[in-house]
Amino acid sequence: MTTTTAVAHPNIAFIKYWGNRDDVLRLPANGSISMNLDGLETRTSAEFDPQLGEDEFTLQGVVQIGTAAERVSDHLNLLRNMAGVAWKARIVSENNFPIGAGIASSASAFAALTVAAAAALGLELAERALSILARRGSGSASRSVPEGFVEWFVASRDEDSFAFSIAPPSHWPLIDLIAIVNAGPKKVSSAEGNVLARTSPLQAARVADAPRRLNLCRRAILEKNFTALAEIVEEDTRLMHAVMMTSQPSLTYWEPETLELMRIIPEWRAGGLPTAYTIDAGPNVHCLSLEESAQEVERRLREFPAVSQILRARPGLGAKIVPG
Amino acid sequence: MTTTTAVAHPNIAFIKYWGNRDDVLRLPANGSISMNLDGLETRTSAEFDPQLGEDEFTLQGVVQIGTAAERVSDHLNLLRNMAGVAWKARIVSENNFPIGAGIASSASAFAALTVAAAAALGLELAERALSILARRGSGSASRSVPEGFVEWFVASRDEDSFAFSIAPPSHWPLIDLIAIVNAGPKKVSSAEGNVLARTSPLQAARVADAPRRLNLCRRAILEKNFTALAEIVEEDTRLMHAVMMTSQPSLTYWEPETLELMRIIPEWRAGGLPTAYTIDAGPNVHCLSLEESAQEVERRLREFPAVSQILRARPGLGAKIVPG
Repeated sequence: MTTTTAVAHPNIAFIKYWGNRDDVLRLPANGSISMNLDGLETRTSAEFDPQLGEDEFTLQGVVQIGTAAERVSDHLNLLRNMAGVAWKARIVSENNFPIGAGIASSASAFAALTVAAAAALGLELAERALSILARRGSGSASRSVPEGFVEWFVASRDEDSFAFSIAPPSHWPLIDLIAIVNAGPKKVSSAEGNVLARTSPLQAARVADAPRRLNLCRRAILEKNFTALAEIVEEDTRLMHAVMMTSQPSLTYWEPETLELMRIIPEWRAGGLPTAYTIDAGPNVHCLSLEESAQEVERRLREFPAVSQILRARPGLGAKIVPG
Repeated sequence: MTTTTAVAHPNIAFIKYWGNRDDVLRLPANGSISMNLDGLETRTSAEFDPQLGEDEFTLQGVVQIGTAAERVSDHLNLLRNMAGVAWKARIVSENNFPIGAGIASSASAFAALTVAAAAALGLELAERALSILARRGSGSASRSVPEGFVEWFVASRDEDSFAFSIAPPSHWPLIDLIAIVNAGPKKVSSAEGNVLARTSPLQAARVADAPRRLNLCRRAILEKNFTALAEIVEEDTRLMHAVMMTSQPSLTYWEPETLELMRIIPEWRAGGLPTAYTIDAGPNVHCLSLEESAQEVERRLREFPAVSQILRARPGLGAKIVPG
C-alpha cells in the first residue's frame, strides 16, 4: 500500500456556523462564509493496510485512543463504505498551530483527512463531494476544502450542503492576526456546542437573520469593502456569542482580555486603522486587517500582556494532495 | 406652600425590563420582576410655588440644567395636568448611593418624585395610579412604588401597565451584595438603551420567551427556592446582555471584572454557597445571597482588587411620604 498525504488550512468564519438542523449529518442551521488561513495547516497521511486489525490515529506524534480516535474511525467508515473497502488505516496528522483553542483545528483536520483518505482509497471525487464528506466529520471542515473565500450552503439534504469558493486567495490580501490569549484546550468542544445551540431562546432569531448577514458579508468581500466587512463580521460574532452564553448550559468562551480587545478594536478602526475582530468558539481574538495596516495592528496587540502569541495568516488555498 | 418629602428605594430586577412597545408611554416589551433595595434610597422633596417662574431641580446639592431638569419638568407636567395646577415646583433630591452606574437610580428617583409631587399637589392616588405615573418617568420606577418583591405587568394600554407587590419584604430575607467594579456614570443611559433594544435581531425572541421566565421566577420567590431563583435570574441576565451587545449600535456594559465574577459566582454556588449574579445596564455585579451565606460571599468578593466597594441591601419597602 502507498501512503497518501494531504494538506488543509483551518478557516476563520466571517459569518459563523453555530448549530445544526441535523446533528448526525451536520447539516447547519444557517449558511456561513469564511477565509482559509494560509500558513496554518494540518498535514495528514493515510495508508489503508489489510494487515491492520484496527485503525491507528497518531496526532502530533501521539497515538490517540478514545473519542478522538473513534471520530476518525467513524469518518473513515464513511469513505470505506463509498469505496467498498474494509481495510483499516494508519492515519498520521500534524498541526503547526495550537489545537482546540478556537482556531478551527477540526476544520483543517477533517478536510485533510477526507482528501488524503479518499485518494488513498482510489476514490476520484469532485471538490463538492469532498466538501460534503468533510462536513460529515466536522461541519466547518466543509469550508476548508475549496480555496480562498468560501461560502457553505444551508440545505436540508446531505448532497446539497457543501462549500464553494466565492473568490480565490489572490482576490483580496486580507490579513488575519490571531491574538492568542489562552492557547489551552477549551472545556466544551465546538461539536458539543453546536448541539447545544438550539437550547438558546435566541438561536432561532439568529438563524432567521442569517440571509441578511450572508448578503452583506458576501458583497463586502466581492467589493473589497473593509469597513462593510468589519461591521458585519463583528455583528455576527456578537450574535453567535449571544447564543452561546444563553444556551443551557451557558457557554462563555471569553476571557477578560477577549472583552478588552472587543472594546478597543472598533476604537482603533474609528481612529482610522482598518481592523476588525472576530471570535470563534474560544477566547482568542482574530484581528482582520489589510496588508498596509497589519504591522501597526500587530504592534498594538503586542502591548497587551495577556496576548502571549500572535499568529499571522493570509487567504489560503483549498485542501489538496501533496508529496508524502 | 408646604414641602412634601418622599423616600423610595431602587430595585434590582430578577427578570429584566429591556425595550419598550411604546417609547413615549414607556410601555415595556415584556413583564419584569424585581426586589426593592432597602438601605439604598432616594429622598425627594417637592414644593409647588406660584412665585416660581420655572421648575428648579436640585440633585445632590447641585442645581440641574439640561436633559435631567427637562425630564423632571416633563414628569411634573403630567402630575400638574392631573391636578389642574400650573404652579412651578422646587424639587430637591438626594441619593445615598452612586448614580447612573446600573443601580437603578432613575427607578428610585421617579418613584420618589411621583409620590412626593402627587402629595404636594393634593392628589390622592392609589398605589396602582402612582406606579403608572412613576412608569411614565422611568419604566423601572413603576416597580419601586409597591413594597418588597414586585411584578410589573406588560400591557398595551397605559392604565394596565403597573407594578404590584407579590410578596412583602418580610417574606424572604434575600441579601443583595452589589459589587461595584466601576462607579462612574455609564455612556449610554438605560432610557436610551431601551429604545435601542428593538434593533437587536434577538430582542423579539427574548420577549417571546419572557412568560416562561416570569413564571419560573415568581414561583421561585413564592416558594423561597434559592437554587431555582439563581438559575432563572442568571439566565435572564445573559439574555438581556445578549440583546444589548447585538443592538445597533452594540452596547457592552461589562468590564473584564464583570466577566470574571459571572464565571466564578456559579462555581461558588456549585460548591454549596448560595449566591447568584444579576447585572443591570452597567458593569456592577449584584450578588444575591441568603442571610447565612452573605458574609462569606462578601468576604470572597473583597478578594477581587477591582471590586472597589460593596453595597448591601435587603428587601425594601415601597415609596412613601416621610416627615420632611
